[in-house]
Amino acid sequence: MSQRLFKNIKPKKMAHINVEEGVPGIRSLALFRPETGKSLYALAQVLLRGESPLSEAERELIAAYVSGRNNCRFCMSSHAAAARCLYGEDSNVVDEVLNDMDHSSTSAKMKSLLRIAGQVQILGKEVTDADILNARSYGATDREIHDTVLIAATFSMFNRYVDGLATFTPTDESEYKAMGERLAEKGYVQPKTQA
Amino acid sequence: MSQRLFKNIKPKKMAHINVEEGVPGIRSLALFRPETGKSLYALAQVLLRGESPLSEAERELIAAYVSGRNNCRFCMSSHAAAARCLYGEDSNVVDEVLNDMDHSSTSAKMKSLLRIAGQVQILGKEVTDADILNARSYGATDREIHDTVLIAATFSMFNRYVDGLATFTPTDESEYKAMGERLAEKGYVQPKTQA
Repeated sequence: MSQRLFKNIKPKKMAHINVEEGVPGIRSLALFRPETGKSLYALAQVLLRGESPLSEAERELIAAYVSGRNNCRFCMSSHAAAARCLYGEDSNVVDEVLNDMDHSSTSAKMKSLLRIAGQVQILGKEVTDADILNARSYGATDREIHDTVLIAATFSMFNRYVDGLATFTPTDESEYKAMGERLAEKGYVQPKTQA
Repeated sequence: MSQRLFKNIKPKKMAHINVEEGVPGIRSLALFRPETGKSLYALAQVLLRGESPLSEAERELIAAYVSGRNNCRFCMSSHAAAARCLYGEDSNVVDEVLNDMDHSSTSAKMKSLLRIAGQVQILGKEVTDADILNARSYGATDREIHDTVLIAATFSMFNRYVDGLATFTPTDESEYKAMGERLAEKGYVQPKTQA
């Protein structure tokens, strides 16, 4: 049979290891290795949904911002979708920040925290005393600075994990919208392997 | 009193947030925020001490190698010390890898995994099909590749977390030797806050 019959079928990019086909990003890895998946989902839940002076929307925005800077489409799109749900009426701010953080309509304090997150994305030592003083000048507390740095560091991990193993990245935005709604409503629930 | 009396006392670099003084690196952050500390220690324990086709020594070596590439002295020194303990008689391999991985005496398979870890340290998408095929040609399995990528990603997080908040980094090598012995013997036990 002629190869030409298949010319419209894009060759499927396989993940680097044998994970369940069609299951996107971190979910496929939590199914591959549930023991580490459990700790990773617990970390995401406490960090993004647990008690914090930062709102859930702000924390999801930091996650999406760092993932965008790391060019991780799966994490950026899913956490941006979650942030849009959580910001509700103010959801435009998510795309403003992802497109041009400095000129977005988010608060000066949030910009100062996103600036710290961006430095962490480069490397920890890039966070300067001036970055911290700047955030404090807008009222940022120790806990806000701590949570910002840990979210940025954690997504520097998740981004590397899902892309380092070339996991499945959906290209249909509607899939991310559904993911974002689930994350906003139910939080981070480890996927269960089929019995 | 003259400032000159204090000329030999180095000004102490403070952490960016108010953590317990003199408590190094990740320990000070787990005490500052025990809820996230719990998930982070659980992740380190399952990843570096749980069941894996990679030995504990090999996993600590990957952690130290990535931390060295991220210029994180605290993580590099503590995990190198743990790796030296775990390699025992072969402990020279740790410093060989940290100094010049390609020309170290570790196995070709371990070099191929460290090469993947080094690509993850840069960014997830830097891991190529050729890197994976190379590791497979030396017999690396899915689980070995998975664990290597997740260890490299996880230390890309820990490095950013401890340096991004400018936590205390001991400069005395004997402190790291004691830490390495504790990590080799007891694993990753979350520090307890004083009652």
